[in-house]
Amino acid sequence: MKLDDIAIVTVSAVAPAAALSGNAAVLLREIADRVRRLIDSGESAAIDLLAMPLSAADLDWLRERLGAGEIRIALDADGESTLNETNCPGVWWVEHHNPAGGVMSAFIEVTHVPKLVKAHVDDIRSGLERLELLVANMS
Amino acid sequence: MKLDDIAIVTVSAVAPAAALSGNAAVLLREIADRVRRLIDSGESAAIDLLAMPLSAADLDWLRERLGAGEIRIALDADGESTLNETNCPGVWWVEHHNPAGGVMSAFIEVTHVPKLVKAHVDDIRSGLERLELLVANMS
Repeated sequence: MKLDDIAIVTVSAVAPAAALSGNAAVLLREIADRVRRLIDSGESAAIDLLAMPLSAADLDWLRERLGAGEIRIALDADGESTLNETNCPGVWWVEHHNPAGGVMSAFIEVTHVPKLVKAHVDDIRSGLERLELLVANMS
Repeated sequence: MKLDDIAIVTVSAVAPAAALSGNAAVLLREIADRVRRLIDSGESAAIDLLAMPLSAADLDWLRERLGAGEIRIALDADGESTLNETNCPGVWWVEHHNPAGGVMSAFIEVTHVPKLVKAHVDDIRSGLERLELLVANMS
């Protein structure tokens, strides 16, 4: 038996992988509601996809409905995080992977820009110290 | 004569490609100054690298000094834009390419998050209309 003969299936403890549970449709309504709130009041939201009873088919269905946007962000820190804009601007598909590449967490973020992308002031200060050292060593 | 036999050189009208002009060191001081302003007053800045008298060696020297950070952003719209965090958080190396891959513009942005990454409210509104149509078609 060759490896190619082995069918690869994704197993979900919650719902059969091939079946839509109906929860993705509920989630799509929730996302639309959160986008409305983002427009009306600037309120951001994060929806934990792995904490919800979603089958693999649900996730595929959702990903297809939201589509792919123009922006792809990769962040390397103890495994890669991907923060990809969907075709609905303001809606981001965010996944954190372990160093082996496995998905550790998955979120829908509804926000102007995902939190992780913003440079924090403490990090900017540390960077400035390095820059000042470089500049001092030049003279 | 095959195409492979033709040596590809980068020509700069301002300084020989292999030589440091001294302008990169001036620019590094300017970047440190802009980072200080970002910390002190939240003021962002963009420095147009192609508008400055920098040689290819200057650009290499600058890129090496700033280093590579954790975040890489790609944006596809009429050619790819890359917005890469340097090892100095708050300092981003931003390049816009034409569809053939040539560099059309290059900037150092000193900011918490590059402008292009933020979802604009008009685009969010259009996306919401698409989402609402999807939701309406489900019921």
